[in-house]
Amino acid sequence: MDDLIKKIRKFREERDWDQFHSPKNLAMALIVEASELAEHFQWLTEEQSGNLPPDKLAEVKEEVGDVLIYVANLCDKLGINPIDAAHEKLEKNKEKYPVAAVLGKSYKYSEYK
Amino acid sequence: MDDLIKKIRKFREERDWDQFHSPKNLAMALIVEASELAEHFQWLTEEQSGNLPPDKLAEVKEEVGDVLIYVANLCDKLGINPIDAAHEKLEKNKEKYPVAAVLGKSYKYSEYK
Amino acid sequence: MDDLIKKIRKFREERDWDQFHSPKNLAMALIVEASELAEHFQWLTEEQSGNLPPDKLAEVKEEVGDVLIYVANLCDKLGINPIDAAHEKLEKNKEKYPVAAVLGKSYKYSEYK
Amino acid sequence: MDDLIKKIRKFREERDWDQFHSPKNLAMALIVEASELAEHFQWLTEEQSGNLPPDKLAEVKEEVGDVLIYVANLCDKLGINPIDAAHEKLEKNKEKYPVAAVLGKSYKYSEYK
Repeated sequence: MDDLIKKIRKFREERDWDQFHSPKNLAMALIVEASELAEHFQWLTEEQSGNLPPDKLAEVKEEVGDVLIYVANLCDKLGINPIDAAHEKLEKNKEKYPVAAVLGKSYKYSEYK
Repeated sequence: MDDLIKKIRKFREERDWDQFHSPKNLAMALIVEASELAEHFQWLTEEQSGNLPPDKLAEVKEEVGDVLIYVANLCDKLGINPIDAAHEKLEKNKEKYPVAAVLGKSYKYSEYK
Repeated sequence: MDDLIKKIRKFREERDWDQFHSPKNLAMALIVEASELAEHFQWLTEEQSGNLPPDKLAEVKEEVGDVLIYVANLCDKLGINPIDAAHEKLEKNKEKYPVAAVLGKSYKYSEYK
Repeated sequence: MDDLIKKIRKFREERDWDQFHSPKNLAMALIVEASELAEHFQWLTEEQSGNLPPDKLAEVKEEVGDVLIYVANLCDKLGINPIDAAHEKLEKNKEKYPVAAVLGKSYKYSEYK
């Protein structure tokens, strides 16, 4: 991830794009890319979404790349370490959703909130 | 990232949540988290978005964590290495947006496409 | 719709919120509301999503309200009649997806583009 | 709006697309269209977003059309009247954000919650 962030910084600076890359704009661009990723799945059944043909999977991989580039770029601008952020949030989620309470339940539709 | 993915897999399996975590559902959840991240910025000016007070930054960091957790989870399900995907896409973007053609231009509004 | 737009305009002006309601910000807010709507469905099966219990349906109706408020607000700012825009786009879609070519096919996965 | 919903129903049925149009899928498609709309604004300043050239405005109008088509389609599937939903939500918002408390304040960053 560190290496990726360095490359993104260089990419952005070489093109003088810092002026467009406010955290607000990057957050907006991140949603747009996440939507392009989701677009591949929107008319598929859940089962189909887990069995993509190789050409579709290659397209999905490109969209994942775009999503992660914007996550990394945004984090670089905000001074956040994304891997640390994910580890910390996962610890919080462990407390929020204790195994005994949510086992096999979709958390939104369980009694547990 | 590898360590993060291992932890997410364990988190998911302990709760028996694989049944809900089709790539389709995870892609949908990723947008929802990306939107929660963007919500912090929607009424701010671009300048304000680059000068968040510490309490806001801490909230944003949590949302970044959620976004990356879903990216990692989705990639684990699809057999995609997210860091590789980002590096490969960045190489493509270098060709798509050559420095000489896009220097200092917002790519969407430049003549260059 | 006309009556709704008039009420939204009054709501916005009484609160002196025009300063925050640039088309850019309203478009961002629209996605955030659309995501809150989608959040109700993300862990449901497609079948469950068509059989919501009354309390869930009431929550979904509120989110639909938020989405349409932002669509109407954005259109008011841009001088677009949303109903006209939808009728015109539907005519385009009729040409883009002729019945004979797409009958019973998910358009994204058919040969037809 | 009633006329629009009737046309959308006919469009959908003629193509035998009801099988793909679960509320879950339509909610996902709605976000994708809302993101395509937002994409037009992501690198613009707020001021630029309020002064679109005619060709850009025409493109934005098409995206607005797509957004409203999915809102109407989803509402038809769920038995929700979208205009009623918006009016009801606007009444709630009036109570939630009283003029005296939020005048000229961005609600997310005001003390008022």
